[in-house]
Amino acid sequence: MVSFENDYITGAHPEILKKLSQTNLEQLPGYGTDRYCESAKEKIKTACGCENAEIEFLTGGTQTNEVIISTILKDYEGVIAASTGHINTHEAGAIEYTGHKVIELPHKEGKLSSDTLRTYLEDFYADRSHEHMVIPGMVYLSYPTEYGTLYSKKELEEIAEICHEYKMTLYMDGARLGYGLMSRCSDMTLKDIARICDVFYIGGTKVGALCGEAVVFTRGNRPAHLVNSLKKRGALLAKGRLTGIQFDTLFTDDLYFKISAQAIDMAEKMKEIFTRKGFKFYLDSPTNQQFIILENNYMEELQQKVRFSFWEKADDTHSVARFATCWSTTEEDLKELEKILD
Amino acid sequence: MVSFENDYITGAHPEILKKLSQTNLEQLPGYGTDRYCESAKEKIKTACGCENAEIEFLTGGTQTNEVIISTILKDYEGVIAASTGHINTHEAGAIEYTGHKVIELPHKEGKLSSDTLRTYLEDFYADRSHEHMVIPGMVYLSYPTEYGTLYSKKELEEIAEICHEYKMTLYMDGARLGYGLMSRCSDMTLKDIARICDVFYIGGTKVGALCGEAVVFTRGNRPAHLVNSLKKRGALLAKGRLTGIQFDTLFTDDLYFKISAQAIDMAEKMKEIFTRKGFKFYLDSPTNQQFIILENNYMEELQQKVRFSFWEKADDTHSVARFATCWSTTEEDLKELEKILD
Amino acid sequence: MVSFENDYITGAHPEILKKLSQTNLEQLPGYGTDRYCESAKEKIKTACGCENAEIEFLTGGTQTNEVIISTILKDYEGVIAASTGHINTHEAGAIEYTGHKVIELPHKEGKLSSDTLRTYLEDFYADRSHEHMVIPGMVYLSYPTEYGTLYSKKELEEIAEICHEYKMTLYMDGARLGYGLMSRCSDMTLKDIARICDVFYIGGTKVGALCGEAVVFTRGNRPAHLVNSLKKRGALLAKGRLTGIQFDTLFTDDLYFKISAQAIDMAEKMKEIFTRKGFKFYLDSPTNQQFIILENNYMEELQQKVRFSFWEKADDTHSVARFATCWSTTEEDLKELEKILD
Amino acid sequence: MVSFENDYITGAHPEILKKLSQTNLEQLPGYGTDRYCESAKEKIKTACGCENAEIEFLTGGTQTNEVIISTILKDYEGVIAASTGHINTHEAGAIEYTGHKVIELPHKEGKLSSDTLRTYLEDFYADRSHEHMVIPGMVYLSYPTEYGTLYSKKELEEIAEICHEYKMTLYMDGARLGYGLMSRCSDMTLKDIARICDVFYIGGTKVGALCGEAVVFTRGNRPAHLVNSLKKRGALLAKGRLTGIQFDTLFTDDLYFKISAQAIDMAEKMKEIFTRKGFKFYLDSPTNQQFIILENNYMEELQQKVRFSFWEKADDTHSVARFATCWSTTEEDLKELEKILD
Repeated sequence: MVSFENDYITGAHPEILKKLSQTNLEQLPGYGTDRYCESAKEKIKTACGCENAEIEFLTGGTQTNEVIISTILKDYEGVIAASTGHINTHEAGAIEYTGHKVIELPHKEGKLSSDTLRTYLEDFYADRSHEHMVIPGMVYLSYPTEYGTLYSKKELEEIAEICHEYKMTLYMDGARLGYGLMSRCSDMTLKDIARICDVFYIGGTKVGALCGEAVVFTRGNRPAHLVNSLKKRGALLAKGRLTGIQFDTLFTDDLYFKISAQAIDMAEKMKEIFTRKGFKFYLDSPTNQQFIILENNYMEELQQKVRFSFWEKADDTHSVARFATCWSTTEEDLKELEKILD
Repeated sequence: MVSFENDYITGAHPEILKKLSQTNLEQLPGYGTDRYCESAKEKIKTACGCENAEIEFLTGGTQTNEVIISTILKDYEGVIAASTGHINTHEAGAIEYTGHKVIELPHKEGKLSSDTLRTYLEDFYADRSHEHMVIPGMVYLSYPTEYGTLYSKKELEEIAEICHEYKMTLYMDGARLGYGLMSRCSDMTLKDIARICDVFYIGGTKVGALCGEAVVFTRGNRPAHLVNSLKKRGALLAKGRLTGIQFDTLFTDDLYFKISAQAIDMAEKMKEIFTRKGFKFYLDSPTNQQFIILENNYMEELQQKVRFSFWEKADDTHSVARFATCWSTTEEDLKELEKILD
Repeated sequence: MVSFENDYITGAHPEILKKLSQTNLEQLPGYGTDRYCESAKEKIKTACGCENAEIEFLTGGTQTNEVIISTILKDYEGVIAASTGHINTHEAGAIEYTGHKVIELPHKEGKLSSDTLRTYLEDFYADRSHEHMVIPGMVYLSYPTEYGTLYSKKELEEIAEICHEYKMTLYMDGARLGYGLMSRCSDMTLKDIARICDVFYIGGTKVGALCGEAVVFTRGNRPAHLVNSLKKRGALLAKGRLTGIQFDTLFTDDLYFKISAQAIDMAEKMKEIFTRKGFKFYLDSPTNQQFIILENNYMEELQQKVRFSFWEKADDTHSVARFATCWSTTEEDLKELEKILD
Repeated sequence: MVSFENDYITGAHPEILKKLSQTNLEQLPGYGTDRYCESAKEKIKTACGCENAEIEFLTGGTQTNEVIISTILKDYEGVIAASTGHINTHEAGAIEYTGHKVIELPHKEGKLSSDTLRTYLEDFYADRSHEHMVIPGMVYLSYPTEYGTLYSKKELEEIAEICHEYKMTLYMDGARLGYGLMSRCSDMTLKDIARICDVFYIGGTKVGALCGEAVVFTRGNRPAHLVNSLKKRGALLAKGRLTGIQFDTLFTDDLYFKISAQAIDMAEKMKEIFTRKGFKFYLDSPTNQQFIILENNYMEELQQKVRFSFWEKADDTHSVARFATCWSTTEEDLKELEKILD
């Protein structure tokens, strides 16, 4: 059965598997100190236009959020997120597990607005009892968001300005960063992201890797003794080569961007199919995830023919369903979808 | 300057100090194993009409919430609270510090409605991705709430029913329990509370003690090896007598209820004063905390003459101020307030 | 039955109770911001000869250790302690609860030697795998130790030197500090302690208070936003006056030192009694805790007549018993002990 | 430069890479629910002779220890380990990070003896102050140990008996389980391990996989809602196929055991080389890790020619060096080593 369930339904881009095979018997040191990790880091720095960036490889998105947030926040701080933020909804309490509160603010289509943020901060500091409250130390954003939407460069810069004014770290979850940057609606490049954010990660798991996320610290703000902190959290891979080789491949000849662009092409075509067939979109997503409103009985019927995700309740008789493309989505997959929707 | 800043502005009820002095040189075992702790526990069980209750003494409200919630919740669970709940706003992230999420739901005048709760739970269990979400394991309520309001017996019973249906613990924060029960609007007794809740605490700090809260487990649900868990959290008092003697005194001759009733009398009189003077109430609180809307400039002026708490912003030019009575509030205090408000 | 079970068998020094009564109805602000806390802090700074010291009041020893260690250590650090250190043995894992390892080193009569410490550190830093190890960030000492023994000024200075060389904080647990300083074998004053240690606490619970410990940060090293961190750990007392008034009393007219000296006098007399009666000491303790080796059957018999603590197994037929004096021990108590031992 | 630095210097066994390639474009559900995970679990259950076993895949050894120990221990419990246990030395405090103490006991050549264990437990429960102590809830063992040594079946059974007597979980760290079981000195099979232990893991990272460990719960003791707990700890791999496919391959046609046996052959030959050349062994290891005592200057010289690990200081002029073989070690590697040692 064809699947649009998510963007991690297939293995790795073939170039990655090829490189893993070619290097397989090379005897390399462990824990991310091998030459492929080094090479991948150099390529990422160049792609970010930030030669002073510090890069760290982790294996998954929740792990990355947990490690970065808990090593950057101070004891008394929490992290601000839109109520729909992944860390607030679908990480099973991973941030709280590290002892820090997720301070949830209202969202608009998955985005946190600079107005909402500023009002919250002004009220917080006007309230004299903030010694009894969690002090906001970081803003967490997703690009694209959990609803596939995108911040404009202006929106992101406004949020960054507030962060710096209030001495908070701006952290971007880039689990699907490629799909965001390659969207026809994006007005940002990877270099913009690196310039505006204090720390962010470039998602690999959802963009062609078997596993792996590349964290980029852009301000000399890599936490001291980070390797110890990774080890302490069970997040240090013995065969660091596994993530190093994958990112080295993804950042060779712009592979990361090319396969992201391909997935966006497929998403645009999928949008056209849904539009043509008269389906209603929950919102207008310019990236690889599309949210369609389905009548509940029809949804169950459809689930017998194609894989997709139930996203959330729309009303008592309708649900929001998510259909995602990814680097491996083919024209054939779309044709099959079109046939099924007939 | 007369103070209505909160309900912990004075020391202890004189009877408590007297008893502390009388027993001072008695050589007693430590850690809550002395005869005054035993006696206090027996009196509380009787007052609760629950001979199988298990009682534990702690020193403060946040500590109590933290200990109870973290020892009862399972690893994968979180605690539901109204967004205005003390654990969600004014405990500096104490629950998250123990690794558990506070799942915030909307409130009405500080109260969580059974409808809101049920809808949340139905949606939660309808969503198939709950393996990636925090599982609700407990409901946290305050009686009275942070806004001084009260649940009716019927409201509490409905919530309890939902809790049992979904196998969640119902926990009541009774930091100001006496003031709630003695309110003229309360339709519950301590015995009702003990019958309906799975665990709750009887607040001492805000009701006449120097410090101390009495946790009541009503269902044989005291966590195993709780003393070790208390010690581990730095919450085991060496001189357990300090809380034992205080609660023994508070539960002798209904002292706890008498001094609570006295504070409610004072609160009713304070309400009359504010009403008479034409002040506007933020909401109708039937307990010892009154919330008054003040124009900002006037509020600053008033703060030069009487102590009270800024509660929150009302609008751009007005604030909500809290005036609290307590067991030690006198008619003289009220007269002085009245004079100041002229 | 007369008790030498520990040094917290009685309530508070009568002067403390008197002061609590005198100030009882004074309306004071909460959370340690009242004038008695301020006054107590000033007196402690003077007694420490350290006008820049920062003081914080907590309620118990384990709580204090947990708060101080976890707010000072960095994410990747642990705390070194003698294997017999209170944090390693009798705090039910309180330090580990905060996410930090207690790095245990061998002891001699409860003391950590500077040689042991230096060898450990040299080996640690010679081992290239320390990215996979807990980095030592603090040294924890008790004065007096859990066996009643004392560091000499020279010993303490040597340890301090190593700490500074290796950029570690030197932290002293002074649960029984008064009894240590007033020992006839001590060559240190409170001023010496304040000069040599980076942070330490002056124990109140075991030296005449109902509860309360005064933490002294001597190097401008009070953690930022400590009040938030206290609240987060359930360690912020609403009626801060309770600890403030007690320490204000203890540091008025040298009361703390006088009652400590009195306990030491009683301990010396107790030692003479045990010696006269031919008992064998487990080690030579110059402070208020005495460790006596008792044959097991005799110990059980004795426990019917006088209260003391089982300390540890000596061999298959003998145990170590602890007899403690405190500020409230009287000549009559000792006479009764002598009679019992006959 | 030829490397015996550790047993994770190369990638994956070629059969694994082949299988990853073959299945690469198959569209599979995430989070370990795919058919390869299912198949791998069935094969492992059969190999363990335990059809009721429950299997879970994780990515690394420290992560596995952290997850298993923290989800099985109760709040008030700690885990017993030999002082040389990996969790006590080289996991940067990962267990403490979860709030639990590692209770270290003395070792003999890396092993915990049943006598040491029993004595500790008897003393612990004889001490009446264990409400202030960490209660032992689990025993952690490594097979082979960190020094390459092995427990005999009898030794393991004795420890298991004590565990059950004291209601503790017996947990075995099998990071190198294959090398242990295939040792010529082992008197146990995988079925024995599964019969004797309550939970253990079969290491993949060090035995031919790119990453991955398979946890086996043998007594219906898989923690409830374990997937939520994994997610909460950042330990749930989106593309669960990555570990599923690897273990499915390793447990097809006994590949896991064959490649382990091959590494043991190489280790035996390496031992012979060292013996022939007159080197002194630190201890007699029957598995894939060999510990050689080297004079410090010679060690530095040797490090220019072959890669191996510094293990620990032997004395002021000598060190212990570790040379490891693994599934990918070849006769050519050994020949090169022999030449270098000339």
